[in-house]
Amino acid sequence: MSNTSIITLLSDFGLKDVYVGVMKGVITKINPNVQLIDLTHEIPPQNLAAARFNLMNAYNYFPRGTIHLAVVDPGVGSTRRGVAIQFAGGYLVGPDNGLFSGVLSLSPPRMAVSLTNQQYWDTVKPSFTFHGRDIFATAAAYLSKGIPLQMLGDFIDADSLVTLSFPDLEITDTGIIGCIQYIDHFGNLITNVSPAVLKSRKWTVKIGDMIIPQVQTYSDVKQGDFLVLVGSHGWLEIAVNGGNAQLSLGLNLGDRVSIIALEEPLR
Amino acid sequence: MSNTSIITLLSDFGLKDVYVGVMKGVITKINPNVQLIDLTHEIPPQNLAAARFNLMNAYNYFPRGTIHLAVVDPGVGSTRRGVAIQFAGGYLVGPDNGLFSGVLSLSPPRMAVSLTNQQYWDTVKPSFTFHGRDIFATAAAYLSKGIPLQMLGDFIDADSLVTLSFPDLEITDTGIIGCIQYIDHFGNLITNVSPAVLKSRKWTVKIGDMIIPQVQTYSDVKQGDFLVLVGSHGWLEIAVNGGNAQLSLGLNLGDRVSIIALEEPLR
Amino acid sequence: MSNTSIITLLSDFGLKDVYVGVMKGVITKINPNVQLIDLTHEIPPQNLAAARFNLMNAYNYFPRGTIHLAVVDPGVGSTRRGVAIQFAGGYLVGPDNGLFSGVLSLSPPRMAVSLTNQQYWDTVKPSFTFHGRDIFATAAAYLSKGIPLQMLGDFIDADSLVTLSFPDLEITDTGIIGCIQYIDHFGNLITNVSPAVLKSRKWTVKIGDMIIPQVQTYSDVKQGDFLVLVGSHGWLEIAVNGGNAQLSLGLNLGDRVSIIALEEPLR
Repeated sequence: MSNTSIITLLSDFGLKDVYVGVMKGVITKINPNVQLIDLTHEIPPQNLAAARFNLMNAYNYFPRGTIHLAVVDPGVGSTRRGVAIQFAGGYLVGPDNGLFSGVLSLSPPRMAVSLTNQQYWDTVKPSFTFHGRDIFATAAAYLSKGIPLQMLGDFIDADSLVTLSFPDLEITDTGIIGCIQYIDHFGNLITNVSPAVLKSRKWTVKIGDMIIPQVQTYSDVKQGDFLVLVGSHGWLEIAVNGGNAQLSLGLNLGDRVSIIALEEPLR
Repeated sequence: MSNTSIITLLSDFGLKDVYVGVMKGVITKINPNVQLIDLTHEIPPQNLAAARFNLMNAYNYFPRGTIHLAVVDPGVGSTRRGVAIQFAGGYLVGPDNGLFSGVLSLSPPRMAVSLTNQQYWDTVKPSFTFHGRDIFATAAAYLSKGIPLQMLGDFIDADSLVTLSFPDLEITDTGIIGCIQYIDHFGNLITNVSPAVLKSRKWTVKIGDMIIPQVQTYSDVKQGDFLVLVGSHGWLEIAVNGGNAQLSLGLNLGDRVSIIALEEPLR
Repeated sequence: MSNTSIITLLSDFGLKDVYVGVMKGVITKINPNVQLIDLTHEIPPQNLAAARFNLMNAYNYFPRGTIHLAVVDPGVGSTRRGVAIQFAGGYLVGPDNGLFSGVLSLSPPRMAVSLTNQQYWDTVKPSFTFHGRDIFATAAAYLSKGIPLQMLGDFIDADSLVTLSFPDLEITDTGIIGCIQYIDHFGNLITNVSPAVLKSRKWTVKIGDMIIPQVQTYSDVKQGDFLVLVGSHGWLEIAVNGGNAQLSLGLNLGDRVSIIALEEPLR
């Protein structure tokens, strides 16, 4: 157990209501000295792919021992499990619906429990619709106080954790077909193509008749021009210098993009 | 005085400007060790009913001694009073305009003062338009440091605190006419009907020709279907599984809904 | 070095993605005990004028020694410098693009460095597109731990810091032509005219054929009426009591407004 006691929060609750504040209240009742850091609460409602993507790209920047509380939970009140998972970076707490499968694909689970021990719930009779408050926030808070993972419930087989699957890339020696896996606040279109696949060669992206060149940073092209780069999160990303690629190209989540190899290496 | 020193913040300031950050700066100048927790800053501009509703549903999840700073203040600079109120859960600080009347209907005031002591203002000449910064933030910060409530100004009669009134329910043995008192981020329509009124029987909601069944959780009906349940905040709520009830039904704040008793008890 | 250790954050990253959370993770890895306070992350994308305005109006409400981390960075990855600046209020950390020139026009720089010392970067090979994470967040975190400014890189001449210039006011004895420098969440139109220029006389604002009177607070006019006042930030501001002046008047950032002196003094 690290002594830093940081809990991050990610959800699709938005910031208009008090749902996020209430989870923080529940946590501070148990551990008033914890450091609470919001990852985002503007995951599109019930969009597990966006939640998985954002958590996967954030966890590694936090201190070891950080507890990541994530609640995008379309199956709340049904039979889906609530889980707490220990991994090299710290802990993951939330519904077992694939939310954590991005993080766990990069850093495998070490131990996992189903949150069945009512002693660590906020109430013996949790609501049917807000386990974020009644079960997950309390589990995260108790972990931050040093309660061992195994106290929170029954061990489960890490192999049984739900995984969100992604369409495979189609890779040939000269081209890749990928898709848009995320669109950020700036309208940057983030593909599911990683630099490992690109193998240090230079590539272009073909959209309709347009060929978009790969560069290193936004200002390598003129204001308003399209570009492709490896984004700060490590994925190939389509952008416009000083503009919004989503609005300009009309592409959406899941749309396929064609990536073509050039013979010259990336400078 | 609790030693946890948590101040929550609720306002209609939005997050686009630095108004919220500036209040936090003023607080940390007085007490740098306080834990600051946002409830929400996206109350619709000057909407006291939404502020009252959100605060009423959040306060009870925080540790005793928590200070709730709430600033939705259409009358700023006029003759409306600024107040600090002690109640069982902790303290309430803000304008006396009904904002706190939801909390106080559930947990009555113990002591109240008008914030007239300029020694605890940020400046001897507060702005005419931002008492959140100049009077309320400082009052909350001094309370968090243990300054007694009675130091902040003159005692006032708790009965004189402004109350926001709500339309009464029309209740018969077989039906209730209520109204929509809040619409959350997910488009869930939250009525002013509490389970106490429902008396453990099963009910349906009638909207036009449509009868919507009461269930326990969203996934008790098919994706896209309407449902009624007792929400996590404790009010009867109209929702769509995986959808947005406000957009689907076109209902708005204050719209009336008809609730019909069924003979069968809720499972 | 103050012992309060507060870092404020301002950016155009929005709250939809994890960019802000990731910067906070990087900071807490270096200094887990810091108090993190968001100023705003909803600066319009790449809008340096809005960033400059908001920072200038917020910094003075924070304790001495506060570190202001600001990242609106259209030139990231180009030759623009990253800087850390010491001034009377504390420290400024971010890109050298004029962002800080509002603060520094009110409180001059004491010492400035270019962030060239890789020892205080998050990685020896920072990304080309997210220096907020890889260089600025770490610099702010090390300052909060007491690392001296001069360790972070090479001294630079404070006169060489980039300044954002503003259109000058046209001032005569009876009138002023100013412009809209910012529009806030409520639709209030904030001009670049300060009370010093107004000289305690009463003024009106002329928009088309309409003359708008200067008052002290919103409720000095009827609900729905236009008014002009000196806002809480200290600038002349055009507003509607209970309404949205931007929507009502159709004015935008940079639009010119004509201000006319009256002989009577402001009450």
